[in-house]
Parts: sequence; C-alpha cells; structure tokens
Amino acid sequence: MPELLEQLRKAVGESHVVSGAAVHDDYTHDEALTTVPVVPLAVVLPGSTDEVSEVLKVASEHGVPVVARGSGTGLSGAAVPVADGILLAFDRMKRIREIDTENQVAVVEPGVTLEQLNAELAPLGLIYPVSPGEQSGSLGGNVATNAGGMRAVRYGVTRHHVLGLEVVLADGRVLRTGGKFVKCSTGYDLTQLLIGSEGTLAITTEVTVKVQPRFTASSTVLAPFGTLAEVAHAVPHIVNSGIDPSILEYVDVMVMAGITQAAGLDLGIPEEIKAGTLAYLVVVLEGMEPGRVEEDVEGLGTLLDELGARDVYVLPATSGAQLIAARERAFFVGKAAGCDDLIDAVIPRAAIPDYLAQVAVLAQEHGALVTGCGHIGDGNVHVSVFQPDDERRHDLMRASFEMALAAGGAISGEHGIGTAKLPYFLEMQDPVSLELMRCIKRAFDPAGILGPDRLLDTAQTGETS
Amino acid sequence: MPELLEQLRKAVGESHVVSGAAVHDDYTHDEALTTVPVVPLAVVLPGSTDEVSEVLKVASEHGVPVVARGSGTGLSGAAVPVADGILLAFDRMKRIREIDTENQVAVVEPGVTLEQLNAELAPLGLIYPVSPGEQSGSLGGNVATNAGGMRAVRYGVTRHHVLGLEVVLADGRVLRTGGKFVKCSTGYDLTQLLIGSEGTLAITTEVTVKVQPRFTASSTVLAPFGTLAEVAHAVPHIVNSGIDPSILEYVDVMVMAGITQAAGLDLGIPEEIKAGTLAYLVVVLEGMEPGRVEEDVEGLGTLLDELGARDVYVLPATSGAQLIAARERAFFVGKAAGCDDLIDAVIPRAAIPDYLAQVAVLAQEHGALVTGCGHIGDGNVHVSVFQPDDERRHDLMRASFEMALAAGGAISGEHGIGTAKLPYFLEMQDPVSLELMRCIKRAFDPAGILGPDRLLDTAQTGETS
Repeated sequence: MPELLEQLRKAVGESHVVSGAAVHDDYTHDEALTTVPVVPLAVVLPGSTDEVSEVLKVASEHGVPVVARGSGTGLSGAAVPVADGILLAFDRMKRIREIDTENQVAVVEPGVTLEQLNAELAPLGLIYPVSPGEQSGSLGGNVATNAGGMRAVRYGVTRHHVLGLEVVLADGRVLRTGGKFVKCSTGYDLTQLLIGSEGTLAITTEVTVKVQPRFTASSTVLAPFGTLAEVAHAVPHIVNSGIDPSILEYVDVMVMAGITQAAGLDLGIPEEIKAGTLAYLVVVLEGMEPGRVEEDVEGLGTLLDELGARDVYVLPATSGAQLIAARERAFFVGKAAGCDDLIDAVIPRAAIPDYLAQVAVLAQEHGALVTGCGHIGDGNVHVSVFQPDDERRHDLMRASFEMALAAGGAISGEHGIGTAKLPYFLEMQDPVSLELMRCIKRAFDPAGILGPDRLLDTAQTGETS
Repeated sequence: MPELLEQLRKAVGESHVVSGAAVHDDYTHDEALTTVPVVPLAVVLPGSTDEVSEVLKVASEHGVPVVARGSGTGLSGAAVPVADGILLAFDRMKRIREIDTENQVAVVEPGVTLEQLNAELAPLGLIYPVSPGEQSGSLGGNVATNAGGMRAVRYGVTRHHVLGLEVVLADGRVLRTGGKFVKCSTGYDLTQLLIGSEGTLAITTEVTVKVQPRFTASSTVLAPFGTLAEVAHAVPHIVNSGIDPSILEYVDVMVMAGITQAAGLDLGIPEEIKAGTLAYLVVVLEGMEPGRVEEDVEGLGTLLDELGARDVYVLPATSGAQLIAARERAFFVGKAAGCDDLIDAVIPRAAIPDYLAQVAVLAQEHGALVTGCGHIGDGNVHVSVFQPDDERRHDLMRASFEMALAAGGAISGEHGIGTAKLPYFLEMQDPVSLELMRCIKRAFDPAGILGPDRLLDTAQTGETS
C-alpha cells in the first residue's frame, strides 16, 4: 500500500494524490440517487496524458481498480469509487487544446466542462450543441455516458459529435482514434465503441468534437394539452412538417408545477386552461434569420391548434429561456422533493403514451408516486419515482424496464447503466449481446481493472483482478 | 464437398445454391479496380434470417469461409468471393419490412437498394438522405462499408442513420441491436461497431434506418475558381454562414470535362471563364420553402463573389440535377477512361489543397496522371490514378496514404479497406488499434470464417479456420 501511494505520487506529483481523511466528500459519489458514497483508496489527479499512462501502469502492476471521474454529475453511479481502488479525477485536465475554426472542431481535455467550451466558442459564433441538463458536466463524462439531453431531437447525442479520441488503455498504452473528419471507413470504429463505455474500456484523455454555427434567433412555444396521448400524437406531425425543432419536450402537470415554482416562474397561463391540462409540449425553434423563426413559429401555432392544443403560447425571450433552464433543473427539483429513483428508458416515441400509462398503473400497484417529463421527440422518458421502500421500488423499476424492452426500447436513453442500473441490465439484456460485450471488455482490459462492476459485472467477465 | 452443398440446399432450397459453371460472372467481383474476379465454391441465396442462420451453422460446421454480397457495387473488394468459400448473396432478401411514419424509421432487408427504399418513401414525403453515388447499392452493403457520399456534409454517413440491426453471428446465432430510437446508453454500442465492419464480424439480415422529411425546394450553384486552394478556403466560410448546404463538392477541370462530356451536358460557361479555371465548387441548397432557398442562393452568390469565385452560376433545375447525376457517374467515367486505382483518403478539410498538391507531385514522380473530385465539405477526396504499372502505382498509393495519415487523416473515407486496401491498412494502421481490432474480430468470429482476409488478415488474427 505505501509503495502504491509512493508510485502514484511519483507519477502525478506529491500534492495530486489524496487519501484517507483528506479525500473530499465530493469525490465519494456522483448524482445517482440510489448509490452509497464510497471513499477510495486514493484520489489521483493527473495533469497530462503521460501522467494518466503512468498511473495506469502502476495500477496494472498492483492489480488495483481504477474509476474515472469528470465533474461527478452522472446519474448512473459510474463514477462512484471502489474502496480498494484509485479514483482518477480530471480536475487538472481542463484545457481546451485547440479551437480549429477552419475544420470546425474543438480539441479538449476530458475535464473541460460544457459551459467552459461553449464560453470559448460563443465569441467565434460557434456552439457545441449537445446539451444534457447539467452544463457543468465534463466532456470526458459526456463521452463516457454518450450524453444526450434536450437538443438530441435535432442534433443527435454525443456520439454524433465526437470525431476522435485519445485514450489510455488499462496497461498504460495510448491509443488515438478518428480525427478532424466526419466520415471514415478504415477498420472497426473504435471511437464509437469507446463512446458510452462508461470508463470500462479505456480512460479518455482528449476529445475532438465537431462544432457548428451558433444560431442567432430562437423562440420558445408552450402548448398545454388535455392528455399526454395528444402530445405524443402531435410530435410526428411537427417533425414531418420540416420545421426541425431544436427542443421537443413533454412535461407533465406535476413536473411543470414543481419546476416553475422552484424557479419562481409565472408563465401567465390562465387557470381555466391549466384546469383541463394534463401535459405540456415545449418546442424551441432556432435559426440564423429571425424572420424565418417567426414564420415557423406561426406555422407551428397553426399546426398545434389543428392537433388539439388547448392554447398556444409564444413565450417572451426571457421566460422562454427561464422555462428551459427550469426544465434542466427538473432532476434537482425532484431530488429536493425526495425522489427515490429515476426511469430513463428509451422507447419508440409513438409508444410513449402507452408506456407511461402502463407505468402509472405500476405506480398505483406499488404505492408509488411518479411524475414525468422527457425528450418526446426522441423517445426518451424521464420518470421520477417516489417510493422509499427499496423492495417495492425495485419491483416497480424492474417492471418498468421490462415494459420498455417489450415496447422495443432500452433501459437507458442517456444516463447509462453504471452501478445503479447494473442488476436490471444484467437480468434483461439479451445474453448473446452480453457475451459479446464481455469479450470486448476482456479485449481492452484483460485484468478487469477499469470501472469494475459497472456496465458489466467483473466477476462474470473473467480474468479479473 | 457434396455433403456441404447438400446441407446448403437443404438450408435455402435446391434452386438457391449455385455452383461451378452456373455461377454468373456478376458474382465473382465487385467494382474495385484492382482486384481479380474469383469464382466461389457456391453462391447461396438465402430468403430469410432463419435461412442465413442455417447457412452459417453449416459453414461453421465445415469451417468454410463466407463472404456477404449486397448489390456488388462496393469499391474495396470486400464482396469478392474466396475460391473455397460461400458467397452469401442477398438478391432474395429485398423486402421493405416496414415504413413507420410515426417513428420516422424504415425497416429493411439487406438486399433492399437505395433507389428502391427512396421510391417507397417519396410518396410519403420522406427520404433516406445518405447518398453514395450508386443508388443501386444495397442497404446491407451500405452498412458494411459505412457508405457516405455527397450529402454527408449535411446529413452525415450511414452510421448516423442506422438505428438498429439484426445480424447473424458466425455460429448462426441471431443478434438484435438498437431499435426505433435515436439515442441509447445501454451497454457498448454494438450497432456502431458492426457498421463499417465489412462483413467480418456478422452478417446483416435487417436494418432499421431513420428517415426524414423530403425537401421540396432545391437549387444547384456552380462556381469556377482559379485554384483549388481558393475553393478550400471558401468552404469554412460557407459552412459557418449557416446556409447548411446538402452538397459541397470540388471537381477539378479534368473531371469536370470528363463527366460533362460523358453526360452530353453543356453548362454554358463562357470559354474565357473556363480558361482561367482549375477547380469548380458545386453547392446544392435544399429546403421546404422555395423562397428561403432562393434567398440563401442569393446570399451564397454574394459570399462566393467575395471569396474569389471567377463567376457564379445558378443552374436551371434540369441541368443542376444532370450535373449532380454526372458527378455521381465520375467513377464510371474514370473507369471507362482506363483509371487504374482510386484514392479515397479522408483528411481535415482545410488540409485538402496541400494534400492534393503533394499528390500532384507524387504523380509526376511516378509518371502517373491524377484527376480528382470529392466531398470538400467533409474532407474526403477521390483521386483517380492512371498508372498501369503495378509497382509504380503501388508506390504512389502507399505514399499518398502516408501523406493522408501525416495530415491527420485516414486511408478510406467511405469505400472501406476490403481486400483492395488491406496491405496499406495493415502496414500503416497504429499497431495498438490493429491489435484491438483483431481481438474484437476473434470475439465475434473465433474461427475466422466471415470475410477472411478483408479489413484484417485472417492469419494474424489467430484461431483461423
């Protein structure tokens, strides 16, 4: 043990290895609701790719597990340390290495946050459009979970924007994949395989992302509907109209009340409209020409009217932005209200009303309260589950995932499996695909030291540390 | 041998196993310029996933190699049979299983062609926008090579549109990945790993693709420039303007002369303009509103003027479409002219002028003629190489790929490695990534029967058949 710590200090510098009581509470958890904080053997803060490589060589030599951590904003427990392992935290690797306007890419270290990157891009008229709720999330973490967020309906998710990676393998070797280009047919796409692998295949040390022109005009439209089924019915009509919304969210009445109240936001919706409303559709349109956005808003209004919206509100710029910000805080509002777990299933978007109706029945059966909002344009629902009893909640969660799979969906749309959803994943995932994933894991990390017992169960993957 | 054929006939039906002299010449090759036709042991034409599974079980039992073939339009030799193996041809699996307008997806069998799919989608106001030159290409083949084409600058390539796959593994087991949703963070993304694997990991039996509203307005703009460097310089300005072109191509003067002549197309460019022109930029703008497309064309014209275009031509609809069709035939025009090989490198787009200048020097050194066009918006160049001497051409090709790698690029942007580019790939690819690819190959196909000696060399991958 002292030898291990000594070697780690040699690798990253005396002051960048923290252990015992000196480990700050922040490092013991991420934002997952159901995981227990763990103090790692050591928090190690590398400052460069070479230092990451040195740390992994030391870890490999000692057979010590390594968990990677960006900003710790994940919701799956993938960044929760293991007690006998290293937490590799990227607080010191926060440099934007390059913004290349000619090729429209940015090259960043894994600790760079979304807000930091976009602050650098904005003066250049550029944006990195992937927008998971938490702007303090790191690009390394975004790559690990294949982060999505509200803008996925138009822009896709992290995997559609990451063009290349530099990663360090478990044994310390450095691998570069992809580059400053959007297409490639040169061997298996290791970039895509690494994205979403939650720190279990390799440790990301550099990310090359595609950036794009920043829109200059934007408008937020809010439409209350009598039922969620009507909201879901409206979605394909909006998408097929060619209006191409950047955001297309449903928010149920409880979540809407919670988030607007938490934000002190009054949207000016008359009580008689509120009274008969069960779900809201939020649409954001963006473009380079204010005139066109206005035209599209008008077209959208007519369409929503035809599709049975109880009213249509074009929000003033300030309250539009406030509503989106409030929606981004929905997780924290739920958490403050005592929410016990989160469903983040993805299903074909046309199946959303049926799915949520089934979940409501489940909630009744299990004595739980469920509230929801989500990315209705891309089929990703977020349901907050209030049921403190572990067993009843676990039963409800399992049934909700089984229903998602039966509807042709998957357990997680964007939060990941991590440690929090691992038992459900192992139970329900097709065994053939699970076997292939284990083979892939062994190919990258034969000793099983990277992210043990998250995404896959280390014991079953074989040849473990 | 007779036993093998007997088992294959049992699997797919008597008339769907063809061997010996009955094998049609079409099945012995794809469109790669440098490969030699090979007559396989048997051409097997399965009619369903179950039949594919049966065939692979038989092949596994006998340790017989299997090469998959869609329409045979590939340019990398990935679909060239092996003499002692089965050619699995998808002529009978051409059904569009479903067009789901609510979820905006299409579910197709691997033999369905791009033109077939788009003919079904058009009346519904939908399109599958990935557009490699050859519209008779199959979706299965598109998945195998991660096909790209001219519209990648706006829409991305095949991997950005495929949401799910059904594949059969070497041992006959069926695996389903993904589904009717655009985002997922549920384990390693096997869909993405399979896309671009050129038939070496599994055999595709169903493809679920995202479709989108079909644009109703379109305009083609042609701008002659004095140098290719000026064309390349113009590209980021156009992209950053927010105009969002669907096509952004450069065509050098020789290719322009070749393709317009072959198509009998007169674009009406005055001789005095032609005289000082070395490269053309072709831009296609598309949208739902003719007025907006017109406005954007006007903005683009002003921009091109500022960026040094020698003139700007907004082509009449008919000649615009003809020019794009002619550009799509560039490969066949080159082939008819005796072209000996094709460079399909991808590099950061800003590096294109330097790269092509280097290739021109190479051509001089190796007594070769090179002509080019390509997807300048996404950094993918297509250079036709005329040099019949194998050794001199091989030296030129190798040097051109080394230069692409040195510029931060890769050997193939969209054609794939297959058999044609395999020696270059094995020689130049980073050994760490090659080792990982071999491990992945072994995980999927331990006996090495799928697509031997294409993308990877079977002997080095170990545990071969």
